[in-house]
Amino acid sequence: MKRILILGSGLSTSSLIEYLLVHAEKENWQLTVGDIDPKAAELKINGHPRGKAIAFDIFNEAEKIKQIKDSDLVISMLPARFHPMVAEACLAAGRSMLTASYVSPEVRRLDYQARQKGLLLFNELGVDPGIDHMSAMRGINAIRSKGGTLTGFRSYTGGLIAPEYDNNPWNYKFTWNPRNVVLAAQGTSMYIRNGQYKYIPYHQLYRSAEMISVLDLGEFEVYPNRDSLKYREVYSLPDIKTLIRGTMRRPGYCEAWNIFVQLGMTDDSYTMDYSGNQTWYQFTDSFLPSGSEGTIQERLASYLNIPATGVLMSKLSWLGMFDETPVGLSNATPAQILQHKLEQKWGLEPNDKDILVMQHIYDYQYKGKAHQHKSSLVVIGKDQHQTAMAMTVGTPLAIATRLVLNGTILATGVQVPTKPEFYLPILTELEQYGIRFIEEEVEN
Amino acid sequence: MKRILILGSGLSTSSLIEYLLVHAEKENWQLTVGDIDPKAAELKINGHPRGKAIAFDIFNEAEKIKQIKDSDLVISMLPARFHPMVAEACLAAGRSMLTASYVSPEVRRLDYQARQKGLLLFNELGVDPGIDHMSAMRGINAIRSKGGTLTGFRSYTGGLIAPEYDNNPWNYKFTWNPRNVVLAAQGTSMYIRNGQYKYIPYHQLYRSAEMISVLDLGEFEVYPNRDSLKYREVYSLPDIKTLIRGTMRRPGYCEAWNIFVQLGMTDDSYTMDYSGNQTWYQFTDSFLPSGSEGTIQERLASYLNIPATGVLMSKLSWLGMFDETPVGLSNATPAQILQHKLEQKWGLEPNDKDILVMQHIYDYQYKGKAHQHKSSLVVIGKDQHQTAMAMTVGTPLAIATRLVLNGTILATGVQVPTKPEFYLPILTELEQYGIRFIEEEVEN
Repeated sequence: MKRILILGSGLSTSSLIEYLLVHAEKENWQLTVGDIDPKAAELKINGHPRGKAIAFDIFNEAEKIKQIKDSDLVISMLPARFHPMVAEACLAAGRSMLTASYVSPEVRRLDYQARQKGLLLFNELGVDPGIDHMSAMRGINAIRSKGGTLTGFRSYTGGLIAPEYDNNPWNYKFTWNPRNVVLAAQGTSMYIRNGQYKYIPYHQLYRSAEMISVLDLGEFEVYPNRDSLKYREVYSLPDIKTLIRGTMRRPGYCEAWNIFVQLGMTDDSYTMDYSGNQTWYQFTDSFLPSGSEGTIQERLASYLNIPATGVLMSKLSWLGMFDETPVGLSNATPAQILQHKLEQKWGLEPNDKDILVMQHIYDYQYKGKAHQHKSSLVVIGKDQHQTAMAMTVGTPLAIATRLVLNGTILATGVQVPTKPEFYLPILTELEQYGIRFIEEEVEN
Repeated sequence: MKRILILGSGLSTSSLIEYLLVHAEKENWQLTVGDIDPKAAELKINGHPRGKAIAFDIFNEAEKIKQIKDSDLVISMLPARFHPMVAEACLAAGRSMLTASYVSPEVRRLDYQARQKGLLLFNELGVDPGIDHMSAMRGINAIRSKGGTLTGFRSYTGGLIAPEYDNNPWNYKFTWNPRNVVLAAQGTSMYIRNGQYKYIPYHQLYRSAEMISVLDLGEFEVYPNRDSLKYREVYSLPDIKTLIRGTMRRPGYCEAWNIFVQLGMTDDSYTMDYSGNQTWYQFTDSFLPSGSEGTIQERLASYLNIPATGVLMSKLSWLGMFDETPVGLSNATPAQILQHKLEQKWGLEPNDKDILVMQHIYDYQYKGKAHQHKSSLVVIGKDQHQTAMAMTVGTPLAIATRLVLNGTILATGVQVPTKPEFYLPILTELEQYGIRFIEEEVEN
């Protein structure tokens, strides 16, 4: 029998736990799910005889060591900042660890130690990062192996509300961590396009969105997100002329979100004075300069050079950014206050379903001609638990777990799934779960 | 005999050391100046019998302890990040310390320990912070003691090139630390105006400059800088309706500097790829979006919505931001590269003199009428050593040193010069050195 320990039972773990329980009898697994709130873990286990829920506190050193030692393999679904602590405890106990998160520098430094001990620290096994890397490498290698030369690679992902349930003026609801949405893309976006390095600061980013279309879903806005330059190394594309990774939203989102960025409302670096007593009107007004005249809408429009009436201003009014009702949050940053408002307005309704959309656009030369290949993934959530986000984060991680436990994957050290021996079996099995890319090829 | 130890002999120490040497015979002082480069310290001592230059490395623990023990009082002119180390060593050795820098949280925490030992950690004794606080508190207390009620306090300071030597299109040269000029005002500027809190993000700040006039020097642009809100407590003005502290530049500077801010060229948070091989043209181009047409000037103008010809673009051309010459700096941040360019163009010429300008604007009610009082300071440098910056940073610090050593100031703990027993004797003596405020009163 193999004992799997899952740490954390948050939103994205439903599909992971379901897969592991479904396979537990045949594979002879025993699953332990630890959460600071054991009731949350129990809900996911739902009385399954192969599963057990326990209370788990990452800061309880003795319990952490005991649980890891009592397992054969650990999956960390804790917030990413805890992965280094889990990884170190795993190495000390002689266990391998899997995560759906980016490899942090702290985890990266454990590579040699993991190899020495014959252990695997396997990361970026979710959707973004995860399926994005696996499918990108499959596409890049397919073009290479037929003799094509890649000139450009662009890759965009979005977690959105499914079209049928898309009923607010922002065409957006929170289908994953609201804080990450509010803080998205802070810092500088770096990419290469037509051989030129581009460094676009946060306050210019939402102006530079472009449109793409995905299958029969219509148009999406895409904008480059953070450091795409480092993927020249990750994807082995040192000489590529265009490389952009980015985020997808529905058209109109970026222009409206840019208002928050321009005002400074997404700033998470300082605490506002007395924000609890302020109204939403005052909150908004505190980002406008003094001395101008007119209604708050007119002053905001004049400051940001946007129309004082119309779609943009309606999106703000719909949120209630000008209301004389109290903010009701004190000692908070602008970003926390904005998130508080958005959670009231962008929350999922009970029957809402989410959608996960991903598109890779490969430009390449083949037999003297320019080709473009598009590879698109669309996953719609089944229900509130088996959301598109939970399915696409949890299923590849669950498959990787099975492949490690049954000896198909024998690697050691710190790994991400960019090698064929990792991504081929995972992508193939994902298709059984409806996670399948649609391929389109155009010769220019 | 009293032994004074000065740590650091950088640009701003000329007037400090001169004052101390001039008074050394009468006061029976012996002065030791320690610098990582003892030659720099020797130049300032210039063979004076009461002075001694030594090599001093803050990271040499034994030498640090020995020198501090061998002194009666320590003045730290090291970069501000080293003050906590010096302060701790002073407390251990039973010595008081004076600095011209803002009190850091690390130094603030030593208050109790300093009081217990009867020692003084006296900070913010330069110009900004320093003379600004002293003169502000004198003005605020003068209005209070005649029965006036302060409604607004604005205070602006600028270190600039003196008008006679102001001969470049930016009307600006580096008269102090270039790095601090490039990184100035990053973060959010916070102030209160007409009872309303205002939070202006960095990327909007340089748009919101205002004009003030100072005596016969003409007009200056001023913009709010960093957190003015906390000065309600520092200046004991909890209910004031307007409180703004800010920076002064010559007219036209802010609009032009804003181009760098908008492009992201002042970002110090990431290293650019291959910047050493790039030309200035490429450096500038890397902040412009792809896909637009025209010359780089036209593309920049279109991106930032500014004229493609005229004063703004001339300022950039004069710097050489579009030149096809190599940047010549690798593994550098955008801010470091921009600083490298500006140091080539904004350096002081051998005979240049600098100017230090400060203005406080007090709005108050007195006997039922609105009054405005302006208090303005203008100091012009004497030469390359006795610059306005060196005089205004070093002289108040030197005076404070004398007042501590002769027992006029007997305070202990962590202090700043906002109390009358500190600022009155210092401001009075400063007038002998030409550091004198001109007062103007207007009844509205």
